[in-house]
Amino acid sequence: MKIINIAVVGLGQIGNYLLNELNTKKKDIEIKTGKKIQIAAISAKNINKKRKFKINKNLFFKDPLDIFKKRKIDILFEAVGLSDGISKKVVETALKNKIHVITPNKALIAKHGDYLSSLAEKNNVNLEFEASVAGGIPILRTIKEGLATNIIYKVYGILNGTCNYILSEMEKSNDTFHNVLKNAQKLGYAENEPKFDLNGYDTLAKVKILSSLSFNTKISKEKCLLEGIQNIELKDIKIANQLNLRIKLLGISERINNQLFERVYPCLVRKESYIGNVNGVMNAVILHGNPIGESIMQGEGAGPGPTSSALMSDLLSILRGNIKYPFGIPSSLRKKIRKFNMENNLCSSYLRIEVNDVSGVLSSITKAFALNKISIKNLIQNPDKKNKKASIVIITHESLEKNYNNLLLNLNKNKYLVKKPTFIRIEKI
Amino acid sequence: MKIINIAVVGLGQIGNYLLNELNTKKKDIEIKTGKKIQIAAISAKNINKKRKFKINKNLFFKDPLDIFKKRKIDILFEAVGLSDGISKKVVETALKNKIHVITPNKALIAKHGDYLSSLAEKNNVNLEFEASVAGGIPILRTIKEGLATNIIYKVYGILNGTCNYILSEMEKSNDTFHNVLKNAQKLGYAENEPKFDLNGYDTLAKVKILSSLSFNTKISKEKCLLEGIQNIELKDIKIANQLNLRIKLLGISERINNQLFERVYPCLVRKESYIGNVNGVMNAVILHGNPIGESIMQGEGAGPGPTSSALMSDLLSILRGNIKYPFGIPSSLRKKIRKFNMENNLCSSYLRIEVNDVSGVLSSITKAFALNKISIKNLIQNPDKKNKKASIVIITHESLEKNYNNLLLNLNKNKYLVKKPTFIRIEKI
Repeated sequence: MKIINIAVVGLGQIGNYLLNELNTKKKDIEIKTGKKIQIAAISAKNINKKRKFKINKNLFFKDPLDIFKKRKIDILFEAVGLSDGISKKVVETALKNKIHVITPNKALIAKHGDYLSSLAEKNNVNLEFEASVAGGIPILRTIKEGLATNIIYKVYGILNGTCNYILSEMEKSNDTFHNVLKNAQKLGYAENEPKFDLNGYDTLAKVKILSSLSFNTKISKEKCLLEGIQNIELKDIKIANQLNLRIKLLGISERINNQLFERVYPCLVRKESYIGNVNGVMNAVILHGNPIGESIMQGEGAGPGPTSSALMSDLLSILRGNIKYPFGIPSSLRKKIRKFNMENNLCSSYLRIEVNDVSGVLSSITKAFALNKISIKNLIQNPDKKNKKASIVIITHESLEKNYNNLLLNLNKNKYLVKKPTFIRIEKI
Repeated sequence: MKIINIAVVGLGQIGNYLLNELNTKKKDIEIKTGKKIQIAAISAKNINKKRKFKINKNLFFKDPLDIFKKRKIDILFEAVGLSDGISKKVVETALKNKIHVITPNKALIAKHGDYLSSLAEKNNVNLEFEASVAGGIPILRTIKEGLATNIIYKVYGILNGTCNYILSEMEKSNDTFHNVLKNAQKLGYAENEPKFDLNGYDTLAKVKILSSLSFNTKISKEKCLLEGIQNIELKDIKIANQLNLRIKLLGISERINNQLFERVYPCLVRKESYIGNVNGVMNAVILHGNPIGESIMQGEGAGPGPTSSALMSDLLSILRGNIKYPFGIPSSLRKKIRKFNMENNLCSSYLRIEVNDVSGVLSSITKAFALNKISIKNLIQNPDKKNKKASIVIITHESLEKNYNNLLLNLNKNKYLVKKPTFIRIEKI
């Protein structure tokens, strides 16, 4: 039986869990692939850090780049997680040395995936990154293999468990963003530095990977419509609830007239829609394609367990199969795609406008809507008499993004305004 | 570029759709696999049947077994759909001739999958059957590859679009089973001979395939708990609705103390549960495993489009990869598994008992429950004064299947009974 030498670079939560999976599932891997794996090298910042298991000193490398000089490796796991720096260097060096690479690193793939995949193809090795999007959902393999000849025109979903947990929990516990975030950090559902989760950046990286695979295009480098959930208030969640809507941070990518429209923002969806009922740390991905129709996958998005499940599926794919194109088709055939002009996006929306409650305010606000050709579907005014303030909630009919942009510019100059209006798009999903 | 010769046996709805996909997606297949396909043989009962396209007479074989004598074939699609007969003969002969086989035929695989997979392995070719379970959902590939090293302990779902459409539509349109079925047949959502859909047999075949893949076991030949939806009345759907429950035909398979418990029956699930909201012709599969947690997939279950999508994914898997074990591991390692004694199944349940409304009836009915140690949680009595009849609906606390069996035997002998009681299990899902 052929022996396959494995290197694991990075021993954080994921690297640790993975090592345990590799060690406990050797027999299962042998049965399923006919190949024997052996851990040949491990790299982490600190060999002495307290861990559940002892690291064999003979396998340990402080500098991961030494591995390439001193060991014969067949497959390398990169689990450091940087978009550049040592992560990129390790993956690059491995591929150039004809070593297969497996990584859960979405930041790296979203930024350098085009370059790294062509490097892998040139060196005739695999570059696998199933774990980079929605760990517990084998969505990349499904697009590349399970739905291989479908024509996909839209892919969207809940791709960040932290944000979905916070939004769900605010509704459930009737508590503020700040308190729920603090609690999520205690429970391990949010990182200590959650910035890239909350501002939508993490979701966008996943959207970029999903688009490339779904539409057979290069990773888009263009600026996208990107908004996070930092400014969502409990108030908005409550009002949404009354309107039979729910706020979800969605990552959405679609082809419109062969133009790519990628965006990430918190939006309002119907409470009884499928996506409106994906709560807590769950992730979900929905695909629209032909002939498949609508296809839905849901599962845990992050955490060492689901992530390791994806890493192991990559490993078995490499052990079992031939060389595969990292993005499903040869790099040279992945085309650039023009960007859809987001100003032409048409949707209805929710605005919450906090104002001083004086005479003339309503007419002044509604005038701004009329000026920008945005027609109002519902208007709810909640006076706060004690403080002589009022909260005006407006649901609009469908209008263009550019009109909303102008409206917000106008409103921000309005003399009655107490604070910046809250603007949330309504997705017809 | 290597040319791969394809045979398609069976030109019903699926065979037809597939041929069109094969013809229109040749270029896509070349790009993704580096191989060129060519249709080398087609077999159908009647060459002259009216079709959207003309069949090249040089490719046509009335008897599919002639194909093996007269053409060099690499991959054969079997789309006849019998559990035995010519379907089995064609697949068997192909495998023996070292031809890869792709089939959507769940009846064939559920009955002869063990034999055919070992035949494929012996001849070093692939036997792929992704389309046999939930066509639009690549669930088999997901179990074998995407979740390859997970330990799965439960798999269940809505696996028959016809039944799910009928149950959903009865609730939606407030119409009888009979009328909804007739309408479903008109719309093409039910076959003219829907017996094997309605009695749960089709779902059971899919459950057997899912179990084998999930638990790495031989296909179970044991008798299962199998009930269809033929006896579900509009009345039950309405009462369920009031109780915040919904009736779904589920196929369920789980390992309990390393014993296999497979069953198919209509059951009551919470209306707000995920599975309670999968309506219409949609299929859904839910897996519980480690480390994956809960994983959900939803999509169109049948129809030529989704089925062809699965057939094409099998084709690309063969074109791209090495020889794979049809059930994920070598046939020789797939173990037999003992059957869980279904009499020990514990659940609460719904009973609707139609009786003559005379004094003493309620005491007589409830006595039967007490005798069988089944405790009653709710009881709703609806008198039909005009006809001197009454409908007694009882929700029970959890009890053993064997107690329910005895209860039903007792009730059937009850002198006040107007007709056989309706018994529906409640699934805690």
